Amino acid sequence: MKHLKLEDRTCYDGSQIQPMWAFKTFGIKDSSIISWMGPMKIEPNHLVDFEDVGLEIKGNNMLHFIVEHFDVQPANINMCYHRQRILVMIIKDILNDFGIRTSRKGDDLYIKKSSSKNDKIGKLSVSIATCSISSMKIHFALNLTEKGTPKDVETAGLFECGLINEDICIITEKICKNYIIEIESITEDISKTKVF
Amino acid sequence: MKHLKLEDRTCYDGSQIQPMWAFKTFGIKDSSIISWMGPMKIEPNHLVDFEDVGLEIKGNNMLHFIVEHFDVQPANINMCYHRQRILVMIIKDILNDFGIRTSRKGDDLYIKKSSSKNDKIGKLSVSIATCSISSMKIHFALNLTEKGTPKDVETAGLFECGLINEDICIITEKICKNYIIEIESITEDISKTKVF
Amino acid sequence: MKHLKLEDRTCYDGSQIQPMWAFKTFGIKDSSIISWMGPMKIEPNHLVDFEDVGLEIKGNNMLHFIVEHFDVQPANINMCYHRQRILVMIIKDILNDFGIRTSRKGDDLYIKKSSSKNDKIGKLSVSIATCSISSMKIHFALNLTEKGTPKDVETAGLFECGLINEDICIITEKICKNYIIEIESITEDISKTKVF
Amino acid sequence: MKHLKLEDRTCYDGSQIQPMWAFKTFGIKDSSIISWMGPMKIEPNHLVDFEDVGLEIKGNNMLHFIVEHFDVQPANINMCYHRQRILVMIIKDILNDFGIRTSRKGDDLYIKKSSSKNDKIGKLSVSIATCSISSMKIHFALNLTEKGTPKDVETAGLFECGLINEDICIITEKICKNYIIEIESITEDISKTKVF
Amino acid sequence: MKHLKLEDRTCYDGSQIQPMWAFKTFGIKDSSIISWMGPMKIEPNHLVDFEDVGLEIKGNNMLHFIVEHFDVQPANINMCYHRQRILVMIIKDILNDFGIRTSRKGDDLYIKKSSSKNDKIGKLSVSIATCSISSMKIHFALNLTEKGTPKDVETAGLFECGLINEDICIITEKICKNYIIEIESITEDISKTKVF
Amino acid sequence: MKHLKLEDRTCYDGSQIQPMWAFKTFGIKDSSIISWMGPMKIEPNHLVDFEDVGLEIKGNNMLHFIVEHFDVQPANINMCYHRQRILVMIIKDILNDFGIRTSRKGDDLYIKKSSSKNDKIGKLSVSIATCSISSMKIHFALNLTEKGTPKDVETAGLFECGLINEDICIITEKICKNYIIEIESITEDISKTKVF
Repeated sequence: MKHLKLEDRTCYDGSQIQPMWAFKTFGIKDSSIISWMGPMKIEPNHLVDFEDVGLEIKGNNMLHFIVEHFDVQPANINMCYHRQRILVMIIKDILNDFGIRTSRKGDDLYIKKSSSKNDKIGKLSVSIATCSISSMKIHFALNLTEKGTPKDVETAGLFECGLINEDICIITEKICKNYIIEIESITEDISKTKVF
Repeated sequence: MKHLKLEDRTCYDGSQIQPMWAFKTFGIKDSSIISWMGPMKIEPNHLVDFEDVGLEIKGNNMLHFIVEHFDVQPANINMCYHRQRILVMIIKDILNDFGIRTSRKGDDLYIKKSSSKNDKIGKLSVSIATCSISSMKIHFALNLTEKGTPKDVETAGLFECGLINEDICIITEKICKNYIIEIESITEDISKTKVF
Repeated sequence: MKHLKLEDRTCYDGSQIQPMWAFKTFGIKDSSIISWMGPMKIEPNHLVDFEDVGLEIKGNNMLHFIVEHFDVQPANINMCYHRQRILVMIIKDILNDFGIRTSRKGDDLYIKKSSSKNDKIGKLSVSIATCSISSMKIHFALNLTEKGTPKDVETAGLFECGLINEDICIITEKICKNYIIEIESITEDISKTKVF
Repeated sequence: MKHLKLEDRTCYDGSQIQPMWAFKTFGIKDSSIISWMGPMKIEPNHLVDFEDVGLEIKGNNMLHFIVEHFDVQPANINMCYHRQRILVMIIKDILNDFGIRTSRKGDDLYIKKSSSKNDKIGKLSVSIATCSISSMKIHFALNLTEKGTPKDVETAGLFECGLINEDICIITEKICKNYIIEIESITEDISKTKVF
Repeated sequence: MKHLKLEDRTCYDGSQIQPMWAFKTFGIKDSSIISWMGPMKIEPNHLVDFEDVGLEIKGNNMLHFIVEHFDVQPANINMCYHRQRILVMIIKDILNDFGIRTSRKGDDLYIKKSSSKNDKIGKLSVSIATCSISSMKIHFALNLTEKGTPKDVETAGLFECGLINEDICIITEKICKNYIIEIESITEDISKTKVF
Repeated sequence: MKHLKLEDRTCYDGSQIQPMWAFKTFGIKDSSIISWMGPMKIEPNHLVDFEDVGLEIKGNNMLHFIVEHFDVQPANINMCYHRQRILVMIIKDILNDFGIRTSRKGDDLYIKKSSSKNDKIGKLSVSIATCSISSMKIHFALNLTEKGTPKDVETAGLFECGLINEDICIITEKICKNYIIEIESITEDISKTKVF
């Protein structure tokens, strides 16, 4: 499984969740996790979450991860959502190490935003998982800033929490590395386990 | 999926990892998570982790969880290890909420033990996952005390970290509830997801 | 698994066989069986049975069932057709209890229509099963009346057989209840079975 | 898929439910349904249904069916129980054609036994399904006579219901033929179905 | 599994790789291998190999094989590519028996073309495998002649190697027969194998 | 996937076909192909091929390959036999390059042995594939010599065909390398293929 870090600010418009995007765009013939910073504005015809129909899904600057797995054949959306949860929990853990305490509900991360007036819970992330018959795909993105996020949702951003660009780079590397190691360690565990 | 909390101090001897233990012992006809406090002393013929052959796996008092899933047919040890990881990460999160900071490597949790002399890392947990063709099983156990754990391993226990019996009860309830909700939420997510 | 009984007379045009129809139309986040009475007129672009290409599939008033299952991942059209057969056989059984003797061939039910002149076999039902990678779908419909059914096919209708609206309501409830119980009972059977 | 009819009165002792019995005993290299008439006395170590532990499962004369499927790889106990249900419903249907009205609950068939005194429900059948990683097995047996069945269970037998040996032979042929056709017809249906 | 030999010179334009082509065109309700001789000119919208985007895939006269399998449910592109490899190796073997020595790399066959000036390696074949949720498809084609093949690729053709039409007919029959026997022999092997 | 070449002359007694042998004996936590030269004498309780019950399976000196795959979960004996066929065909090809013409039937290789008197066909190899729920195993062995092979079977040996120890070493390396590349190339092919 390969990690590719994009340097340009690609806009996540939903087309990147399609199977084989990594091969068609970057020629990657393997499972992969691709990370980059950039805006998000999902086009309606690329919407994968039927619950989001009619909603605006956007942000001016987000940290994106696109995962594609070919190791499970046929692809299995149940497995894919399990891996999404593992990815989210790895991210929650690493943010915690950087002093960002989040709470998690399913595949969403939230931050408590305290002010003089009141406490609010800000949504920090968006995520979806999906499948074709031959590949499993995950998109996970963290708001770097609250700017440009939907007005009808209380959101939170990592920059507003005090992180800086250098932190984001380190966090990104850690997330991708830990996720790849996690999936590989499972294969190793299988090879030493007695079954019935 | 059902949660059953055992009140007696059953010794975990490894026989509980066998498929259908929940039905044969308690008549449970469903996926289940069973929790209890008690000692551990794994008998060699019940050893499932080939890496542990020849080792003593034991403790005087541990918090045990036995999970069995029937929802994936045929059972899949890859899926089972994914669920094990999710269970461990849920436990890590809840311990964190109770002030117990742990680090995780694969399916193991560790605690930093500071003393006047030096810092040590104590192993807090043991875990295994396995399968028959029709069921997926997970055993996860946390040391409540370091007493009775193997002498050649640096271990840690929740009581030594300052938790008390009442904490353990609350933690146990939360772990089982959150795990059940997590698995159920994945099924709900699938039903709202467009696939390719 | 949920049963939803629609009160309005939705026309079955084939769009209802598409995956996620239950979520997109009714917000159901679960496996489901949806029943209603209404006409049928399948639009060619919604045709799922390639053997029906060029045929008229229609009726003025039918009792429809749309089943969607998310419990098997990845979805499996072989399993789906097994469940379709089980559904058809449950329906055959319940009709038998109401004095309607039918014969079955694959997924079709037939009724012997006797008249002074001769005996004819009338086709009572239409059915199809299909899949996406994440869900299994079944449509099964019984003619309530022969009116509006294709002219080139000898058909039969439940009203012409002497059943009345009240019977249909009871039959519908029984079919849905028995089908749900049947699928659930299989899961229970698995949890008490020794495997090799 | 092959049908083999045994002529000798083999006792069903539970060993026949083991995978590959058909190959090891008769050299059959294919999926198969094997039928015969004979007694039943299940030896405890051959018990597959954990719910039957400690019970006597026996009868002096029963009509046995042993099914083994290799077409689904890896074998799937969920699929196997679906096929068991289909087999039971086919048998229920054919008995109905011979004037034997039965009711079904899961994999069990029952007959209402009326006498001058009262009505009783007699259990007509026993059944189990199981799997190894490579094959799916079903045992289904109908009591030909109530003689020799467990004393603590109200049972029914086909001979006591008025059927004779010649009926049983015809019924046996029909059951096996219809079951084989049913499974084959599903494969044919798949090849004409559009999927999403 | 059926073999159908087409007598007319159908142009392979890529539409034949679509699932259910055999049923929709020839009414075949089974797994099948269809063979014919004819030109190839793949239309861009029928391209299945993303690596071929922008390339011309063509030839004036090729020996085509289209395989469709329904025996594995859900279809599995991993299995499908294994069968493709087996098909290619069977073809390599049979060509060898006819004096045509080829080398193989993945799913491609090559021939060494010697001339007075130098040695060249000519590409003899094209192939792809793909899947829907319910069927696995393979296209494999051998150049009968180099005429009409892409100018930027060194190709080889069976006619230029000295084979004549009669040879091709015998070779075609052998390939289809051996492939069908191979797949069937695997099922037989399963039924005599002890598993753990 | 790893290749391990054993230097000592381990006797293949059938125990090596058991799942996890590579981990338990050599600590390999991965899919693997292990090769060595040594005798074979299968102990009856380690027999996996029910067709061989009662037969002697032996030889004084054979070239053994033991393959174990963990990449397909749950393990699938159908896939395993496909890989066995691919392994056998790779071996056939490489032997051909060394001037050893063989014929293949299923998983067996044969050599034509010509003498002044008559032509005989000698069996060159033995092979089996099997599975547990978590791993797929293949044993394939070539007779290096006819010495010590069963008397009631006409056999052939590579040494008698003129190969020497150095050839065997080169052949062994090539077989293992090509097999590993073959399986890996399939994964790569999947990542560039459009599915339906």
